[in-house]
Amino acid sequence: MAALTLAIGNKNYSSWSMRPWIALRASGIPFEEVFIPLYTDQADKDKILAFSRAGKVPVLVDGDITVWDSLAIIEYLAERFPEAKLWPEDRAARAHARAVCAEMHSGFQALRNECGMNLRRPVKPVALSADAEANIARVQELWLDCRARYGAGGPFLFGRFGAVDAMYAPVVHRFRTYAIPVAPEVKAYMDAMMVLPAFQEWTKDGIAETIVIDKFEDA
Amino acid sequence: MAALTLAIGNKNYSSWSMRPWIALRASGIPFEEVFIPLYTDQADKDKILAFSRAGKVPVLVDGDITVWDSLAIIEYLAERFPEAKLWPEDRAARAHARAVCAEMHSGFQALRNECGMNLRRPVKPVALSADAEANIARVQELWLDCRARYGAGGPFLFGRFGAVDAMYAPVVHRFRTYAIPVAPEVKAYMDAMMVLPAFQEWTKDGIAETIVIDKFEDA
Ligand SMILES: N[C@@H](CCC(=O)N[C@@H](CS)C(=O)NCC(=O)O)C(=O)O
Ligand SMILES: N[C@@H](CCC(=O)N[C@@H](CS)C(=O)NCC(=O)O)C(=O)O
Repeated sequence: MAALTLAIGNKNYSSWSMRPWIALRASGIPFEEVFIPLYTDQADKDKILAFSRAGKVPVLVDGDITVWDSLAIIEYLAERFPEAKLWPEDRAARAHARAVCAEMHSGFQALRNECGMNLRRPVKPVALSADAEANIARVQELWLDCRARYGAGGPFLFGRFGAVDAMYAPVVHRFRTYAIPVAPEVKAYMDAMMVLPAFQEWTKDGIAETIVIDKFEDA
Repeated sequence: MAALTLAIGNKNYSSWSMRPWIALRASGIPFEEVFIPLYTDQADKDKILAFSRAGKVPVLVDGDITVWDSLAIIEYLAERFPEAKLWPEDRAARAHARAVCAEMHSGFQALRNECGMNLRRPVKPVALSADAEANIARVQELWLDCRARYGAGGPFLFGRFGAVDAMYAPVVHRFRTYAIPVAPEVKAYMDAMMVLPAFQEWTKDGIAETIVIDKFEDA
């Protein structure tokens, strides 16, 4: 099997990079990672641009196929490695899973801006806008609904770990570090994520990084 | 075949609604549309919420399956109606198409904010931020690249009309009404879109609407 390459940013901060990385690692798919430090200088930006004209990480390279954008990479992995079962097998469940992922991909701006992923951040609450509070309520509603409808086979959103969990993994870190109060069932889901070896590996690596990006640190 | 229902917002303004609508119509898939006026009162908001707890249109209902979010609806249609060939058949082309769509779905905020879709708007330029200009350059780069790599079989981004064209159809209106200067090849693509019967039907319906949403009108 040809080796896959995944270009990623700083594990401490890059929530978009975390999504396909954890999908790959949790599925046991071998890949090489290329780390490009984010928001430094033109030389690093040029490294990203050499992977993708979108100028953003993550980027997956599989032979002569280049896929940029976290959601598109996960769709690609689901096709390329069907045995990983990243999407649920049932059509209705799969449609639901895709809607949950696409809603995340195009929304939740307030949550993203006000609770940026920063693994090293000391756990403490911040004052949140009404929009961010609504985002947090909606994420919990989505998670509880997935668990209730499709979660019977395991502790993840659709039972076994899959694409939806990969897309929401960074939110588990956001909820944790900003000390967001959550429902008990939501806490149980977060706990399942936090003991997943792939999640722990990413987290350990991120915390070990020493680069500080000022704009992503609390004032 | 069970009838599909698509809940949409105002055709004049709702760029997200236009995407699955044009995918359905251009593919000749029968469906009923339900119009819910956007940004009016709680009664209308409740109508949206009765379709989807996300509280947003578009929403597709197919028997007991409900799919919210424009991109997830298009993925669902691609699976449910394979004969519509919404995604390219070649794996590499399909990966590229999905990346182009996912990049649109999660980005281009400045373009969205500064050049809101408004079909009735008199054609004239506006002052744009550097971010919006960069968005416009990137869209053109993406379109030219798709056309060069995969456009041989027809005038659309991957030759025949498909998911990517549906996702970018609202941008054709944005470029048109804000009189964005474009490359000749980009103009040719926009022209192909503007003579597509499904595009013309949506446009005619939108222009015929009389509801004005103040926040989406130029100051
Ligand atoms: N839609 C993209 C967004 C990726 C994104 O915004 N990546 C950020 C880092 S988390 C980035 O690469 N920024 C670098 C830059 O803009 O120079 C995805 O899902 O992959
Ligand atoms: N990610 C969603 C976004 C949909 C969206 O933002 N829809 C807007 C109208 S274009 C809406 O329904 N707004 C109504 C509201 O917020 O009350 C999608 O792609 O379908």
